[in-house]
Amino acid sequence: MCGIAGAYGVPDAGRVVSLMLKAMQHRGQEAAGIVSADGEGLHEIKGFGLVDEVFAGVDFAARLPGTAAVGHIRYATCGEADDRRNVQPLVASLRRREKAIVHNGNLTNYPTMREALERQGAIFQTASDTELFLHLMARSGENPLSARLKDACDRIEGAYSILLLTRDGLLAAVDPYGFRPLSVAPYGDGWLFASETCAFDLFGAAPSSPIAAGTIVEIDSATEGAMLESGGEPAITRHCSFEHIYFTRPDSVIFGVRAASVRERLGIALAKSAGTKTDIVTSVPDSSNAIAIAYAEALGIPFRFALIRNHYTGRTFITPKQTARELGVRMKLNADRHVVEGRTITVVDDSLVRGTTAKKIVELLRSAGAKEVHLRIGSPPVIHPCHWGIDTPSRQELIAADLPPAELAKLLGADSLEYLPITALHEALDDKAGVSHCTTCFSGTLPEEIPIPLTRLIRKPA
Amino acid sequence: MCGIAGAYGVPDAGRVVSLMLKAMQHRGQEAAGIVSADGEGLHEIKGFGLVDEVFAGVDFAARLPGTAAVGHIRYATCGEADDRRNVQPLVASLRRREKAIVHNGNLTNYPTMREALERQGAIFQTASDTELFLHLMARSGENPLSARLKDACDRIEGAYSILLLTRDGLLAAVDPYGFRPLSVAPYGDGWLFASETCAFDLFGAAPSSPIAAGTIVEIDSATEGAMLESGGEPAITRHCSFEHIYFTRPDSVIFGVRAASVRERLGIALAKSAGTKTDIVTSVPDSSNAIAIAYAEALGIPFRFALIRNHYTGRTFITPKQTARELGVRMKLNADRHVVEGRTITVVDDSLVRGTTAKKIVELLRSAGAKEVHLRIGSPPVIHPCHWGIDTPSRQELIAADLPPAELAKLLGADSLEYLPITALHEALDDKAGVSHCTTCFSGTLPEEIPIPLTRLIRKPA
Amino acid sequence: MCGIAGAYGVPDAGRVVSLMLKAMQHRGQEAAGIVSADGEGLHEIKGFGLVDEVFAGVDFAARLPGTAAVGHIRYATCGEADDRRNVQPLVASLRRREKAIVHNGNLTNYPTMREALERQGAIFQTASDTELFLHLMARSGENPLSARLKDACDRIEGAYSILLLTRDGLLAAVDPYGFRPLSVAPYGDGWLFASETCAFDLFGAAPSSPIAAGTIVEIDSATEGAMLESGGEPAITRHCSFEHIYFTRPDSVIFGVRAASVRERLGIALAKSAGTKTDIVTSVPDSSNAIAIAYAEALGIPFRFALIRNHYTGRTFITPKQTARELGVRMKLNADRHVVEGRTITVVDDSLVRGTTAKKIVELLRSAGAKEVHLRIGSPPVIHPCHWGIDTPSRQELIAADLPPAELAKLLGADSLEYLPITALHEALDDKAGVSHCTTCFSGTLPEEIPIPLTRLIRKPA
Amino acid sequence: MCGIAGAYGVPDAGRVVSLMLKAMQHRGQEAAGIVSADGEGLHEIKGFGLVDEVFAGVDFAARLPGTAAVGHIRYATCGEADDRRNVQPLVASLRRREKAIVHNGNLTNYPTMREALERQGAIFQTASDTELFLHLMARSGENPLSARLKDACDRIEGAYSILLLTRDGLLAAVDPYGFRPLSVAPYGDGWLFASETCAFDLFGAAPSSPIAAGTIVEIDSATEGAMLESGGEPAITRHCSFEHIYFTRPDSVIFGVRAASVRERLGIALAKSAGTKTDIVTSVPDSSNAIAIAYAEALGIPFRFALIRNHYTGRTFITPKQTARELGVRMKLNADRHVVEGRTITVVDDSLVRGTTAKKIVELLRSAGAKEVHLRIGSPPVIHPCHWGIDTPSRQELIAADLPPAELAKLLGADSLEYLPITALHEALDDKAGVSHCTTCFSGTLPEEIPIPLTRLIRKPA
Repeated sequence: MCGIAGAYGVPDAGRVVSLMLKAMQHRGQEAAGIVSADGEGLHEIKGFGLVDEVFAGVDFAARLPGTAAVGHIRYATCGEADDRRNVQPLVASLRRREKAIVHNGNLTNYPTMREALERQGAIFQTASDTELFLHLMARSGENPLSARLKDACDRIEGAYSILLLTRDGLLAAVDPYGFRPLSVAPYGDGWLFASETCAFDLFGAAPSSPIAAGTIVEIDSATEGAMLESGGEPAITRHCSFEHIYFTRPDSVIFGVRAASVRERLGIALAKSAGTKTDIVTSVPDSSNAIAIAYAEALGIPFRFALIRNHYTGRTFITPKQTARELGVRMKLNADRHVVEGRTITVVDDSLVRGTTAKKIVELLRSAGAKEVHLRIGSPPVIHPCHWGIDTPSRQELIAADLPPAELAKLLGADSLEYLPITALHEALDDKAGVSHCTTCFSGTLPEEIPIPLTRLIRKPA
Repeated sequence: MCGIAGAYGVPDAGRVVSLMLKAMQHRGQEAAGIVSADGEGLHEIKGFGLVDEVFAGVDFAARLPGTAAVGHIRYATCGEADDRRNVQPLVASLRRREKAIVHNGNLTNYPTMREALERQGAIFQTASDTELFLHLMARSGENPLSARLKDACDRIEGAYSILLLTRDGLLAAVDPYGFRPLSVAPYGDGWLFASETCAFDLFGAAPSSPIAAGTIVEIDSATEGAMLESGGEPAITRHCSFEHIYFTRPDSVIFGVRAASVRERLGIALAKSAGTKTDIVTSVPDSSNAIAIAYAEALGIPFRFALIRNHYTGRTFITPKQTARELGVRMKLNADRHVVEGRTITVVDDSLVRGTTAKKIVELLRSAGAKEVHLRIGSPPVIHPCHWGIDTPSRQELIAADLPPAELAKLLGADSLEYLPITALHEALDDKAGVSHCTTCFSGTLPEEIPIPLTRLIRKPA
Repeated sequence: MCGIAGAYGVPDAGRVVSLMLKAMQHRGQEAAGIVSADGEGLHEIKGFGLVDEVFAGVDFAARLPGTAAVGHIRYATCGEADDRRNVQPLVASLRRREKAIVHNGNLTNYPTMREALERQGAIFQTASDTELFLHLMARSGENPLSARLKDACDRIEGAYSILLLTRDGLLAAVDPYGFRPLSVAPYGDGWLFASETCAFDLFGAAPSSPIAAGTIVEIDSATEGAMLESGGEPAITRHCSFEHIYFTRPDSVIFGVRAASVRERLGIALAKSAGTKTDIVTSVPDSSNAIAIAYAEALGIPFRFALIRNHYTGRTFITPKQTARELGVRMKLNADRHVVEGRTITVVDDSLVRGTTAKKIVELLRSAGAKEVHLRIGSPPVIHPCHWGIDTPSRQELIAADLPPAELAKLLGADSLEYLPITALHEALDDKAGVSHCTTCFSGTLPEEIPIPLTRLIRKPA
Repeated sequence: MCGIAGAYGVPDAGRVVSLMLKAMQHRGQEAAGIVSADGEGLHEIKGFGLVDEVFAGVDFAARLPGTAAVGHIRYATCGEADDRRNVQPLVASLRRREKAIVHNGNLTNYPTMREALERQGAIFQTASDTELFLHLMARSGENPLSARLKDACDRIEGAYSILLLTRDGLLAAVDPYGFRPLSVAPYGDGWLFASETCAFDLFGAAPSSPIAAGTIVEIDSATEGAMLESGGEPAITRHCSFEHIYFTRPDSVIFGVRAASVRERLGIALAKSAGTKTDIVTSVPDSSNAIAIAYAEALGIPFRFALIRNHYTGRTFITPKQTARELGVRMKLNADRHVVEGRTITVVDDSLVRGTTAKKIVELLRSAGAKEVHLRIGSPPVIHPCHWGIDTPSRQELIAADLPPAELAKLLGADSLEYLPITALHEALDDKAGVSHCTTCFSGTLPEEIPIPLTRLIRKPA
């Protein structure tokens, strides 16, 4: 989970990218960075924290000049998180020309590829798998750069949606499975790129279209600002279903579908498969609001905010003492006794991963006087880790991996617990042969192997 | 608008107050400060920014030791906002003993009192009216401190809920009208004080009770940790109605009433007086959610989130350029075309002040394809500035001051506009003779004069 | 020990004062501050650290505008050193008009005066004795400000050289004894003030003259930029002799005398009274260079740098561990074995206070192979604390207070130890009845009481 | 110009290296960095500013653990000075094992080597020539690491004294000409390395010996803490003569000779070749003190400090305005009128490069009333840039390149100007066939080519 954005042929591109990143801030709050290109060279600002923190007081015209830029916001708190070198964009000088790259996703053959390259004398500067792209391009004999990028993609396995900035051009690429979203929209005489379309809405940039799986697109001065055409749909896709269920902002379109619509369908399907009559229905704000309201409406039960979220709980947390650990949850969510007391309640959440939040929510509601608490989940239980970039824990920590719903309900202190069946999920996602979604985290089944290279480098006909 | 909190007889009081302030962060994001007392002296941390920012990484045990503390979060961006000396708590040494004071409200006789004191040789260190309390106490001949505080209160006019910390005691006072909220709750062997009760919920401190208008309460080691009893209800109160309508967190109890209940009654009353059939009802998240949902339910119309809020829009804003000004609104709120397009929509907001947000929301919905946009306001229009601490603009900027609803609807681009009548507001607030709410900002009528001094210093009988 | 500077009628006065402070940085490295006046109001910058650190990157024209300014550098690490409120200039609003004050010296009746004022309702904001001036002026019924300042001075005892800035005027005052230096020099159409004249040399401002003991001088727009004349010499002075011996820069004139000349006379007198033949003479750089070179020349012995000083040993020291404590001295001073080995050496130091440095220097020279080490001190031993602003330790820590030279030489590990006799010191200082120097720290004899008020407010005749 | 230091087998190695760097702070004030090794991995701290600033408040045990460390202080303000990536130590991961390198000197074949390596797919991360060592070692097929380092050295031309740290070993190397100093001394059970021996004096580490030109030495756990023996003297050396004349601290030994002794010889030789009788002799403190005192003594003329240096003129300078430009010199140096007025003066400086300082010093002395000013330089005039790491300007800026002394004296405003002849310099440096000094900057003659590879990897016999 992370977010990327780019702009080409857009005045004040650095600022525009900063605002797009801010619109997608929910995709990552740990670090942010932007590199701009002004035809002469690249200019970089990056740091830890929110977009507003990293770019506070920045004079964009002076420090990020130019009409092209790429940016990244980071979610993960992996290994060497506090090392600024791992913050994207990564910049490297390939034959004295600087390139900047941003990447959303996870490369599954990184360890073996890194070892092979190091044996050949390559020096890796970061702990980020993204650096693979740079070394493979540096060593490729192909020309032009887009061919070198295809060369690199053909040797890389896993999930990637990337943007690559040169001093006068921009390339975008999506892996052959299309795991992670990346869309493009025309804007003025140029183009905007973003993980989610809510970033385009800011600027009224339309119409947007998803970049198809297995495609490299290229814009540079030689194409006179026009983007090279991208290819058609590939034979098979594995779009991440978790993006729809939880991660994407409700007003964004990803993989060509609006997230809020999917969530409404999940709520209705959940009502059909697991609906129960209670006095009120409530959500875990704000992520499950859409699913919960659709569920409540489908059953004709009043929807109430029984849990109040404090939106000022930042990352730079006041260090909680041992005894204050549970304050963390109460600081984020407070159960409104006035709403809860003496009532039977259904709590609709979007997903069940570790179960820690669910357990605390049931406790909060019980201690605020709820008569009954029924838990309904708008997706199947997560039982398998993700290899393509969603930060799921190891199998031992996945609470539903081994426990049937009834036992788990007891463990969580709920009166009942029901999930959405996986078939209903596929139905809500409108999956069909070929264009389909990855549900490995719910099913444990790995996607079929795609013979690589599949990446098509598509250039506009003259 | 501001928030205050205090703790007495509570282990780790500095940290506890920091968490209470964080729970009330919606009351002010500009500055935060805490002073603790450890029996020997006072210890202070304050700065600009959110609670999490000011106290990031603070070792509370080392830097804010002791079992008593008071804290403040500041909303206003008044005159010399960037001067750290104005950030509360204000600390002064009265006869070699330090006192710290925090204050929510606005003192109406500050200019004349300051001038009189300066003519007598007083040196003011801040531009904050709160400093009046310190000078008046320093010059009072009374004893003990609570009597000196009463002496000061008797000469001060306006709105104040204050907490005063000494090295081994804590006093609380509320002005004779009771303009601003302040509650107290027992916690362990000690006491917690806060503007809103959501701060107590964090710690499960209960039961809470509001401190009555015109009362000074005192706790110190002489009372063996027991709080001195506060007085009964005064003859007449002027609780701020805007606190219920907009400012307070929905799950807080203030002036003895839960905000969410008031808002539900406002929504139902609005449906009764101004209900219109449209395809959907929506809110301006999150402040009008409760009013809008109650309104929708009362009329049997589906409630939908048509406006999506980005919760990462902080104060340290990326400087918007002229052309980017309108991005500010779109960054905070995005209209979800999927929900809006082709539908007739009622937007329920909590109040109408300058009209700038209302105008932009109508535009957002229209440009996302709404067929009709009807504006409903859960309170009467604001037509008069507030003298007691709500940051309302001058009369010229109050858009509803001179325009009838129909004309204003046209100006805002809405198909219709209706308010809640002031009588319905008083009804929803359960007003009666004596214990009543201030509605000067809606009516323009100033509250009747209360002959002062009315402050009762109440000490527990032995 | 501290330094003050001021400018009146000088373009870019804030920057000019910053450079004067920097020239006097040896007088204090702990904190620095400047307040400027532009006819409308006062502007302030202050902070901890060197002048260059506090004013790094400051846009003087924008942040310290105006043609008048006063500044201060602080030496002392007294009580609440880390409290920014104690950093000078102190600024207070007296009857809505701001004043800024800077002060070099120590007020001996501060504790009793503060208590008396607090009993009358005064609120002290700092732990600095300088604040006394502000409260006494605030309570004075006199007019104009210079008369109020005289009123304050008449009630204050101790050492003070002060500068007081208003929005359009500047006052200077020196206590009746003239303990601490303060000089003035014409510069362009205006005036410069400084503790030491090396600050004037920077600007070629000349000729300078010391401000006489017991005088208040005043410049404002009413005097058309001309300074009011100061009075003649008072009946008796007590200029600080330690300023000449150690504190002042060698190229500065203070109390009308150049420091380097005094030091040469001290060296010659020391050679006469305590000269010994050794292979070489060396100094403790840089403070005793002038005394040591004069001593060596008078005896015809070669002068060599046997101790090399590292000038990069700042205040923000790398925290030394227990075992590394002695590294502190070696980091500052290294004995050059090439110069020292096998030789008999005389080390000339300027003064002997605690003896810790002397002990370590003898050790350094012995371990670098010195055959004999003879210690010669260019002043009598310090045996009494200073009440007027020199940071001498308590009597127990004054190593020479109870030990005769021969025993002390043994304790310090030196082959011999001799001081300058106090009569020779008075001679070198050219003392006579009336205009004389304070030698209380050497003799233990307190100066005779001067009946106060003695301060003369001198105004230019029309 | 730069300084390097290292420690192996030394408890608290990070702190020890920090103190050694501080002792050598005169070699570079722009940036500082240390990497330590604790057997498991490397730990790094680096930043811009003085050693005390970069390491202020650092908990060495926690952040730089281990018994081995290397550090660097940077002088140069070259190209991309403000890019933290160029600050040394440079760290790179070679085959998953991190190495850290520090380097003093300048590599003359860097541009061509970098281009060749980039053509083979190498990605350079810095603008520092030091990175060459890392890429050449990464690509070498040799084993062990010392052999890979020799492989790299054999392909590199120019000046280098380097230290290379692994997680459990340390290597040192000096180029075949021995341009820059590097010494080693036993300390406890381990070893200290430093550019100058003043760093060893801090710890009493002795005896020290210079690492011979063209040698690689290696210490690691396999050698049980014992350092591998280094080789004998090479056929020919080109030690930098400027190190002796100006750069090294007077109490340091470099290339086996103590700097202060060389400077005394320079002063005596200058007196012999160019001595003139004047009333006094003075120095430009502190760099020419030793030369000037020896010169004065040889001629029997009194030495006086006529120029007083302000040691608080840091790097973070208060931005001087156009008119204030000349203040810069007066801030650093003030001529003491008392010493100067009416006298004939000889100023002895160590070297003449741009002539800007010399010109200003003559002006300062004349405006303080000097009757005559004679300039004597303790080295030949600099007429050629340095390719091996001394920051000399281009030929046009070298004032003595084309002007005979008499004309130059006139230009500088001096009554006379004389240099030390180059033959006297070689004599003072005790040069002989084979072991000699580089004087290219004085003579313009490049050193004879040494056929490379000449580097000997010396391992201790078992």
